[in-house]
Amino acid sequence: MGLPGVRENRRMPDPAAHRSDPSLLEALRTTRAIRRYTDEAIVDEDLATIMFSATRAPTGSNRQGFRFLVLKDGPRAVQAKAVLGESFRAGWAEKRAGDGYDSGSGVEDNSPKARTARTMQHFVDHFEETPVVVLACIRTRHGGLMDGASIYPACQNLLLAARALGYGGVLTGWHAFVEDELRAICGIPADYDIAATIPLGAPQGNHGPVRRRPLDELVFDDAWDATAEWIIEPAGSQHTGSF
Amino acid sequence: MGLPGVRENRRMPDPAAHRSDPSLLEALRTTRAIRRYTDEAIVDEDLATIMFSATRAPTGSNRQGFRFLVLKDGPRAVQAKAVLGESFRAGWAEKRAGDGYDSGSGVEDNSPKARTARTMQHFVDHFEETPVVVLACIRTRHGGLMDGASIYPACQNLLLAARALGYGGVLTGWHAFVEDELRAICGIPADYDIAATIPLGAPQGNHGPVRRRPLDELVFDDAWDATAEWIIEPAGSQHTGSF
Repeated sequence: MGLPGVRENRRMPDPAAHRSDPSLLEALRTTRAIRRYTDEAIVDEDLATIMFSATRAPTGSNRQGFRFLVLKDGPRAVQAKAVLGESFRAGWAEKRAGDGYDSGSGVEDNSPKARTARTMQHFVDHFEETPVVVLACIRTRHGGLMDGASIYPACQNLLLAARALGYGGVLTGWHAFVEDELRAICGIPADYDIAATIPLGAPQGNHGPVRRRPLDELVFDDAWDATAEWIIEPAGSQHTGSF
Repeated sequence: MGLPGVRENRRMPDPAAHRSDPSLLEALRTTRAIRRYTDEAIVDEDLATIMFSATRAPTGSNRQGFRFLVLKDGPRAVQAKAVLGESFRAGWAEKRAGDGYDSGSGVEDNSPKARTARTMQHFVDHFEETPVVVLACIRTRHGGLMDGASIYPACQNLLLAARALGYGGVLTGWHAFVEDELRAICGIPADYDIAATIPLGAPQGNHGPVRRRPLDELVFDDAWDATAEWIIEPAGSQHTGSF
């Protein structure tokens, strides 16, 4: 196709080298958002397993109003990735400026903020090279929060299945600026919303423990803000700041 | 507490008999919505693991606007479960009438519809006895679908972790009719929405393969409605009807 930024000959990986299928609990604890990918393709058989796993998630009344549009290297995929790439770069530029990534700790080379900024910049600069991008769509029913109960569990299954097979991805929302263009390119009907854009690939770097607020800020027992005395913060947990 | 329908002395299970921690891919394929529970309690240590696993899920910008209010047998939990029970019974009565559960195949004893109706009736009739009910809340940001991207992945992690430890649950939305009462009882602030009500317990019955539409109706390649030639429907998959 010869569009700039699109790799036409991806290296086919050795699937055996990838696979880890960890235990369920281990996976839930250690599946990270992956935004940097190697130049390896996603093997079709693995992609099939990932999408099968996604569609096993629950939906309201098992209505299955979810649809997954998989963008690989086909003609519409190349157009859609280019439109998304622009949108992601604009989204990150706005966030970078608005959230102070270029001031304070953001300019200290080894601060978490500076590392995040480098990862994000690389992610958006190379968006078009992402091996696979999935548009997770949901048929509009109530037009609000609860519609998400029938699509985001499937997105999480998708990310967990990718991880089982040695890949990784991230749940993103920066398609929102270009939803009309994406609808036109890919033929997405008006009664479906794009709930998430999920880039997928083989990770540069690794999955591993994730950083969250202390558990007693997130889990309450019996009443709001009431400490759940039975919670256990595993030894060695690393926390983000509270607010 | 002595309220009718509330079990005060749950049987403490032998945790070792429960645990299965299956492989990740196996779990994604076979985690069912569980609506019938034995009289076993959820061991506190297991509940801690379930809630820790839930909070490892991603949220937008790792903002973690999710909060989980766990209702066990405390004073507010008993009140909230009673309010929810009434609401679930009303919700099911409406659905039972509106979706024709009492006509056609709904009245044939062994039809899937009749079995669903029996399970649902049992579920709502015994709601107050559910060992644990989790209210999954999210701080309102955009007030729409995308807010769900920061709470429903965690709900799916929660259900998968429960399954790893021998329990099960189901993502439900019938709190919607009584949200104001629940806010008052539990002190849920106005800037948080209740995204889901998740009952949890030890299952009567088993997890196992779930029934979905044929995969080619749910997954498209490159364009809407375009068949993904690489999808693989595993042998023996059972399907729901298409629409």
